Amino acid sequence: MQQQLSVLTLGIADLARSRRFYCDGFGWTPVFQNEDIVFYQMNGFVLGTWLTSALEADMQRPLAARSGAFSLAHNVAKAEEVRAVLDRLSQFGGRILRAADAPPQGGMRGYIADPDDHAWEIAWNPAWPISAEGYVRFAPA
Amino acid sequence: MQQQLSVLTLGIADLARSRRFYCDGFGWTPVFQNEDIVFYQMNGFVLGTWLTSALEADMQRPLAARSGAFSLAHNVAKAEEVRAVLDRLSQFGGRILRAADAPPQGGMRGYIADPDDHAWEIAWNPAWPISAEGYVRFAPA
Repeated sequence: MQQQLSVLTLGIADLARSRRFYCDGFGWTPVFQNEDIVFYQMNGFVLGTWLTSALEADMQRPLAARSGAFSLAHNVAKAEEVRAVLDRLSQFGGRILRAADAPPQGGMRGYIADPDDHAWEIAWNPAWPISAEGYVRFAPA
Repeated sequence: MQQQLSVLTLGIADLARSRRFYCDGFGWTPVFQNEDIVFYQMNGFVLGTWLTSALEADMQRPLAARSGAFSLAHNVAKAEEVRAVLDRLSQFGGRILRAADAPPQGGMRGYIADPDDHAWEIAWNPAWPISAEGYVRFAPA
C-alpha cells in the first residue's frame, strides 16, 4: 500500500476558538469550511478540524472527547523561531506544555497544546530538509 | 508560517506489535528504527511511532497513554479496496471500529483501530486526487 496519509482529523469543541489558533496563530488559510468542519490543505495531505461529536459519530467510537497519546510537530527554519512561534501561539489560545529548550541530540524544541489540548511540538531540526512546498524528509542527524 | 506538518508521532506501548500493523499490515518500510521509536517517511512528512513513556517525558505531559479525539485517514484508489484493506489490517492487530459502508456524501469508508487504539479511516474519496508520490489534495465533491 502507498506509504501515505490522506487526512489528519482533530476533534474540536468550538470552531471559532480552534480557527483562532490555526488561522490567526499559525496564520494558515482554510481551503474549505462549513458549520462543523474546517479543512486546511497541508504539505501533501489535508488537515481537518471537526466537531468531536461529529467525529465520534463518524468513527462510531464514543468517549473520544479528549486528546491522547500523540503529538504533531511543526518544524521551523531557525532556532530562534521556536520560542517566537510558541509565544505567538500562546497569544491565540495555545497553552505551553514545555518551554523551548535544546534536546540532547541537538536542535531546539518546545510543546504547546492547542485549545482542544492537542499537543504541537515546535521544533528546529537542522538535519531534516523542508522543501519550498513544505515537504519534510527524514535524514540521519 | 508555512502551512506544514513535519512529524506526526503516535504513542505506542509495544514496538513489535505496532511494527506488525504498520510494516506487515500496511506494508510500509521504516526509514529509521531503534529500541524505542520507528520512523516512516510519508507523503511530505514523517510518521513516528514512539513508546508512550518517552513521548510523555518529551512533551512533559503525563497521562497521555490513551488514544483520543483524532483520526487518521488512508485513502485508496478504488471502492472495493476499502473492505480489503480493513480485512488485511484486522489480520495484523487492527480492530475494526466501523465496517466499510458508503457515507451520504458518496465514496466508501470504514474505521479500524491500530494496536494502540489510534483510529484509522480507510476511505475511497473519488473527488480528492492523490499523486504518484502520494500527495493528497482537497477538492470539492
